[in-house]
Amino acid sequence: MKIALAQINCHIGNFEGNVAQMQEAIRDAKSKNADIICFPELAVCGYPPRDFLEFDNFIKKSKEAVEELAKAAVGIAVVVGAPRRNPVIEGKDLYNAAFFLFDGAVQHIYDKTLLPTYDIFDEYRYFEPGSNFDVVHYKGYKIALTICEDIWNIGNENPLYTICPMDEMMVYQPDFMLNISASPFAYDHAEQRKKIVATNAERYNMPVFYCNHVGAQTELIFDGGSVVMSPGGKLYEELPYFEKGIWYYDLEEVKAGRAYRAAIVPKIERIHEALIVGIRDYFRKSGLKTAILGLSGGIDSAVVAVLVQRALGKENVRVLLMPSQFSTDHSIDDARQLSENLNIQYDIIEIEPIYQRYEKTLEPYFSGLPFNIAEENIQARARGMLLMAFSNKFGNILLNTSNKSEMAVGYGTLYGDLAGGLSVIADLYKTEVYDLAKYINKDGEVIPTNIITKPPSAELRHNQKDSDSLPDYDILDEILYLYINEQLGPKEIISKGFDGQLVNRILKMVNRNEFKRYQTAPVLRVSNKAFGMGRRMPIVGKYLG
Amino acid sequence: MKIALAQINCHIGNFEGNVAQMQEAIRDAKSKNADIICFPELAVCGYPPRDFLEFDNFIKKSKEAVEELAKAAVGIAVVVGAPRRNPVIEGKDLYNAAFFLFDGAVQHIYDKTLLPTYDIFDEYRYFEPGSNFDVVHYKGYKIALTICEDIWNIGNENPLYTICPMDEMMVYQPDFMLNISASPFAYDHAEQRKKIVATNAERYNMPVFYCNHVGAQTELIFDGGSVVMSPGGKLYEELPYFEKGIWYYDLEEVKAGRAYRAAIVPKIERIHEALIVGIRDYFRKSGLKTAILGLSGGIDSAVVAVLVQRALGKENVRVLLMPSQFSTDHSIDDARQLSENLNIQYDIIEIEPIYQRYEKTLEPYFSGLPFNIAEENIQARARGMLLMAFSNKFGNILLNTSNKSEMAVGYGTLYGDLAGGLSVIADLYKTEVYDLAKYINKDGEVIPTNIITKPPSAELRHNQKDSDSLPDYDILDEILYLYINEQLGPKEIISKGFDGQLVNRILKMVNRNEFKRYQTAPVLRVSNKAFGMGRRMPIVGKYLG
Repeated sequence: MKIALAQINCHIGNFEGNVAQMQEAIRDAKSKNADIICFPELAVCGYPPRDFLEFDNFIKKSKEAVEELAKAAVGIAVVVGAPRRNPVIEGKDLYNAAFFLFDGAVQHIYDKTLLPTYDIFDEYRYFEPGSNFDVVHYKGYKIALTICEDIWNIGNENPLYTICPMDEMMVYQPDFMLNISASPFAYDHAEQRKKIVATNAERYNMPVFYCNHVGAQTELIFDGGSVVMSPGGKLYEELPYFEKGIWYYDLEEVKAGRAYRAAIVPKIERIHEALIVGIRDYFRKSGLKTAILGLSGGIDSAVVAVLVQRALGKENVRVLLMPSQFSTDHSIDDARQLSENLNIQYDIIEIEPIYQRYEKTLEPYFSGLPFNIAEENIQARARGMLLMAFSNKFGNILLNTSNKSEMAVGYGTLYGDLAGGLSVIADLYKTEVYDLAKYINKDGEVIPTNIITKPPSAELRHNQKDSDSLPDYDILDEILYLYINEQLGPKEIISKGFDGQLVNRILKMVNRNEFKRYQTAPVLRVSNKAFGMGRRMPIVGKYLG
Repeated sequence: MKIALAQINCHIGNFEGNVAQMQEAIRDAKSKNADIICFPELAVCGYPPRDFLEFDNFIKKSKEAVEELAKAAVGIAVVVGAPRRNPVIEGKDLYNAAFFLFDGAVQHIYDKTLLPTYDIFDEYRYFEPGSNFDVVHYKGYKIALTICEDIWNIGNENPLYTICPMDEMMVYQPDFMLNISASPFAYDHAEQRKKIVATNAERYNMPVFYCNHVGAQTELIFDGGSVVMSPGGKLYEELPYFEKGIWYYDLEEVKAGRAYRAAIVPKIERIHEALIVGIRDYFRKSGLKTAILGLSGGIDSAVVAVLVQRALGKENVRVLLMPSQFSTDHSIDDARQLSENLNIQYDIIEIEPIYQRYEKTLEPYFSGLPFNIAEENIQARARGMLLMAFSNKFGNILLNTSNKSEMAVGYGTLYGDLAGGLSVIADLYKTEVYDLAKYINKDGEVIPTNIITKPPSAELRHNQKDSDSLPDYDILDEILYLYINEQLGPKEIISKGFDGQLVNRILKMVNRNEFKRYQTAPVLRVSNKAFGMGRRMPIVGKYLG
């Protein structure tokens, strides 16, 4: 029994493209005499299709796509994920299904039982949980088909569900398990994922073939990293990360197991790869080509510039350097040096004349009032406007360069530096941005060293430093991580040794700036808890605020 | 048996305020010798608390609030909604519970069984469905306690759930039902709600007391409109809409029934009330006081100005009139006249000098290229910047004045006219904005007639009219309604008699502008499907795109 895992890059709603990609993979698998080829969860429509699932027409197109694939399933079995109508009138209208196609027809359907509805997942919004646990009979083998979350309710201290689909299937004594998944990247997730697959292979003592998506869908980056596990829970192979392709396995060899060691890749290297894929797929899948961003001379825009240049190519990135009267000389020098290192087009546009024009216009209303956030924000917004003017004139998409620490505490200007179509590093705390900058420079200076070593500043007034109004990033980031990623409350955070007043001040800042984050671009997700679809907080709320 | 329904205005996470409000209501009810007082669903923490529910500290505070209320439940029973920990380790960690408090203690807990997870609702994200259907024994009566959605799985053609909690409770033969709810306003929802309560009172042949929230939480506006239904499904009383208070009922009188006719209120009047409540509570609950907006002389900003003046008072609204070289004289005259009618502060600021300053700055890059959307957007963004400068200097919150039609097709400028902290009329199609303007003028001219009668224009280039690039709003709005509110696909819409090319063009515009809506303010929800939390679409997707 030869099994193919096709780690493919689907595109939401692109039925034609997704089917064509799978048809090609099936041809390849047939040419290599595979018996089964597996595609990921909801591969025909892409994951997550979100409210498109509520359109009857979208479900019809999914059905047609499955029928199209069934035609190709001759001489080979095809396992593929797609939504399907719930034939029973009670309950949600859809199932999240795995189709087993063979001999030109649907031979078996398994409906996902455990529907993740937390963080970025909304599956119970659309799907009824499955309750049929038959196995597939194929060429003398019994196959347990499962979908993603179905295998995660195992060995947890605090299980989310009251049922475990594989326990139900075990009465039929399946020979091996196929799991089709849509498991997005977070820098600590691959290890958990491998552990869960191993736990299943161990508990049920059978080979497990786990097939994941690769590629990004707006904020979610699927990292691939599909795995093949031998009985007993020994890793047989880990597929490449962030790479699409088809890999072939002989069932008996997987059963026998082998010595295999997975590569150990540092967190920051994975993040670097993930962000590049995130940028690239956002552009490609949106039919866009070129990007623009503002280079301030600071570390955030520097890191984003490098990532974009690597994702789209130097000819597709353009940057603006927009000094004001508050900019220091080194900012321009550093930004220019970076542009030259990256070999990207840069222009220098002074914003002071625009700023002064606003001042003059506002003089009748503002005269006598002290310089404050209004004047600071005018500078940030003038830059945002210039970038958007270039974007509108030349079609370059503006990328946002905010980091997670400043997004958290509201240290950014709406419609100014918070502008942009995609937020590249807003799931990285400032300290992680430094780590990424150092990683980028590991083989030589790409980002000018001075950008990494100088104290961070927004340069919106004279001699401004981030540290004027924020604690050291080392401390700030730890508190933010505990609140945002670990979801600890103020008392629990303080009990870890942080100053009580500081913790309360920071948590309030986070809550009070929900209104800003509501209006910012989608954030490429690299951690277990990113701003955006996975973190849903009230705007008008008083808790901690 | 005297039953009090307390239709209160809670505030998310404001435990102290919510408890104080309920304690006061309990005192009132005791002074009137009520036997039971009911508060709405999740009243102690406000609805919807969203991801605050994932914070242990938030759940602890909810528990303490219930304990505080229990102390007041002496000589009277108190029914109140609050989250509670699921004592079983398997399943979600929380229940959405109704507490029956009496004699200073919790006497009974009912856990919500049907957890709405669609549109704006995310309850299965947090809660485990209940499965215990005991009734409450109190003063010789048996009471069926239910929570909101629990009573909605009845008489539907396509039921969402496979269980009906009241069917389960009927084995105990309850004497009457109390339902505590958090059912937000949509202009057609109150009728459905009354029908569902009536269907329950008829099917189970008992009095039903239905207690809803009133007041807004960011985008969701709770309209109150609690109802008391006599056995057989005859309306006994409909409580006021958009008004908080306590109403008292004698059980025997409700059992006996009476002739009662609910007031019939036109859709547009309800919308008018709802939006005023939405604005007022957004400001009050955020601790804000004053608003600012731009008056273009068009109908959208005119309607918003009226609503804000009515919500916050004339002294708390300030408007800017910001003509450009493309503005027509009547725009300024109309806007000035409106400001005078409303007796609000207005200032006129020419944006041409700023626009020209941008042109000059951009000249080296744009010279020789035709005037296009870049120049149009500079005007819109210059206005947005001036409004934000006032907002930042004086603390007035900028209100967004976009309507649903333009939000749908992307006819608006990001960081320009799409700016603002709250979107007031973005759940009203343009034709509905006209209806609202006419309603506002029903007793005399508030909005200058010319604003209502002239053809709509963005005035971003010479002689521009909306009709240059969009079909008539009558047709556009119908197509948008069918796609957005009814979720019909292109074929179904075309089959209703619309031009195929036009339908496809419009649906594509809606999908392709998802990225803009992602970055706009929360929208006050008045229909069954508003942009925002209730409509979750992919940005990078190809379906219809």
